[in-house]
Amino acid sequence: MHDKLDPENLDPLRPGPPGVKAMNCHFDYLFARLQELVPGKRIVLLTDSNLAGLYTAAFSGHHLISFPAGESNKNQQTVDQVIRELIRMEAGKDTVLVGVGGGVVTDITGFVAAVYMRGIPFGLVPTSILAMVDAAIGGKNGIDVGIYKNLLGTIRQPGFVVYDYSFLNTLPVSEWVNGFAEVIKHACIRDANLFAMLERYSLHDFQGNLVLTAELVEKNVAIKSAVVHLDEFEKGERKILNFGHTIGHAIENLVGMPHGHAISIGMTAACNLSEKMGGLHFEEAKKVIRLLAKYHLPVDMEADHEKVFDVIRMDKKREGEDLNFILIDKIGHAFIMPLALETLRHHLKEIL
Amino acid sequence: MHDKLDPENLDPLRPGPPGVKAMNCHFDYLFARLQELVPGKRIVLLTDSNLAGLYTAAFSGHHLISFPAGESNKNQQTVDQVIRELIRMEAGKDTVLVGVGGGVVTDITGFVAAVYMRGIPFGLVPTSILAMVDAAIGGKNGIDVGIYKNLLGTIRQPGFVVYDYSFLNTLPVSEWVNGFAEVIKHACIRDANLFAMLERYSLHDFQGNLVLTAELVEKNVAIKSAVVHLDEFEKGERKILNFGHTIGHAIENLVGMPHGHAISIGMTAACNLSEKMGGLHFEEAKKVIRLLAKYHLPVDMEADHEKVFDVIRMDKKREGEDLNFILIDKIGHAFIMPLALETLRHHLKEIL
Repeated sequence: MHDKLDPENLDPLRPGPPGVKAMNCHFDYLFARLQELVPGKRIVLLTDSNLAGLYTAAFSGHHLISFPAGESNKNQQTVDQVIRELIRMEAGKDTVLVGVGGGVVTDITGFVAAVYMRGIPFGLVPTSILAMVDAAIGGKNGIDVGIYKNLLGTIRQPGFVVYDYSFLNTLPVSEWVNGFAEVIKHACIRDANLFAMLERYSLHDFQGNLVLTAELVEKNVAIKSAVVHLDEFEKGERKILNFGHTIGHAIENLVGMPHGHAISIGMTAACNLSEKMGGLHFEEAKKVIRLLAKYHLPVDMEADHEKVFDVIRMDKKREGEDLNFILIDKIGHAFIMPLALETLRHHLKEIL
Repeated sequence: MHDKLDPENLDPLRPGPPGVKAMNCHFDYLFARLQELVPGKRIVLLTDSNLAGLYTAAFSGHHLISFPAGESNKNQQTVDQVIRELIRMEAGKDTVLVGVGGGVVTDITGFVAAVYMRGIPFGLVPTSILAMVDAAIGGKNGIDVGIYKNLLGTIRQPGFVVYDYSFLNTLPVSEWVNGFAEVIKHACIRDANLFAMLERYSLHDFQGNLVLTAELVEKNVAIKSAVVHLDEFEKGERKILNFGHTIGHAIENLVGMPHGHAISIGMTAACNLSEKMGGLHFEEAKKVIRLLAKYHLPVDMEADHEKVFDVIRMDKKREGEDLNFILIDKIGHAFIMPLALETLRHHLKEIL
């Protein structure tokens, strides 16, 4: 999968295919060989202050823009700053913007590349588990406005995604934990074998074995890509990726909790609701919750149910429809359950 | 052409076709009947302070967002303000954002609708000649960053465009003049008959006769639509719409001149260059310049040629290519002339 990128894919107005095909997804590829993917093009790296500090040598020789690390900077001010720097560098349509970092970096990169000069080519080098298995795949980008996550954004596929697993050597353990929430989500909604693999190993096993982790990441990329490929614009099937996210996003915003933690609590609530309304056996619900806990993810919190409900309500306004709640009827199979908002309100205290 | 809009076209993720087809372009349609185009949808009008003041009665009964009038407000601050108001209104994907105004309003509308919640449906009601014949057609939107025009933007087609010519009754004469620059451009690049029609009548004739103006607008919409339809993403043919714009945009930015005036001076320079390098007969060049002057457009200015050149150079960075200058070899036929930047620099003093 180290083939050169089809140059057509770098055309900003003919972005890559949805999901990831071998053509634009480069597993186990050395970051140092980035330029070979886009011969003759000018690369501008976009990263955050943490990575800029850790990888000074690796990034040297590239044009570099870095912004302060942290989810709280995934906003318009950061976008404005990046755009000012692009102008200063005289970046144009001959420029490929390459985001190197976690989900905040990949989101900012996709959004800036979508709007700068009505679209320039971009690629992603995810450096966290979360970005590798989720944020870098599928083309959604977004920035937050106040408490509303990803309120602004577009859907536009990257020209390429590069996986250099050596970046994981500097990933803090808290970020490993954060990323495994999405990994467990993929297992719950689509892959009982992956679920069994996660039961067999521990976080410690993955951290100590990048070959095993690479296998895990590639399984997850395949799951997400397959779903996105079926339904790029989230008319149906893609919604199952929101398992745990309806409640998760709301508490993430309200409490400022890491995404993975919030999603873990959201998945716990979704399992509880699946038991009530979705035909999930209580032993299976328990297994999910045990697995989350095993990967050091929280499964419980003190919540202000009314506030959570209010954020969900506004969130759902985005869809222009009643709530579509994602439930599972067994480990490895999710489905969409249309739910009146009032029904959710009614159950919220019991499930969260 | 008063058919109801195909609801598919209002799907934010399946925008209308490029250019304008009968299906989504509604000529001579009463603004008061806007809701009939999108039955059951929630409309939010977006307009500027001038129109909000003039059309209070017409807009009442709609959700309304207005921002201060003027090209200097076509920027991120205005976008931020509009987005705050959309949040306050709890606008979601069930909302159709309808821009009512000139080119600034149509550009802001398209851009906000492209990024809010990863895309909501939008429609346009152009109220100026410029917006009717140009800005509302073709899906380009944009906001300015400092002196760089349309540095941020996307290409996304509106769900519908409504032509209610009664809005022209309040259009200031300076805006009639502004709009006719694009009308003359269309004649120069594509339609000798339209050019003859413009020679036959005067601005005064059009202002006094909305039936004649409607005929003119519809001819122009047809010209621009046909070009855009061939080449939505400006790989080739669409570039001819940039006739007069390479130099025009640069002086518009530097001097803060109205768009039409700047384009008129740009077209004059492009005719001069067409005479030098494009085989345009000098009598034809004179005819263009005479027509511009007849419609009260400036054809000359004191320019700082080095500064103009610098802005063009940065502008061209956007294309990632050498300059593609648009020339005409006769009235009604334009072509693309690749030009080294240095060649333009060399000629600039003689043509501008």
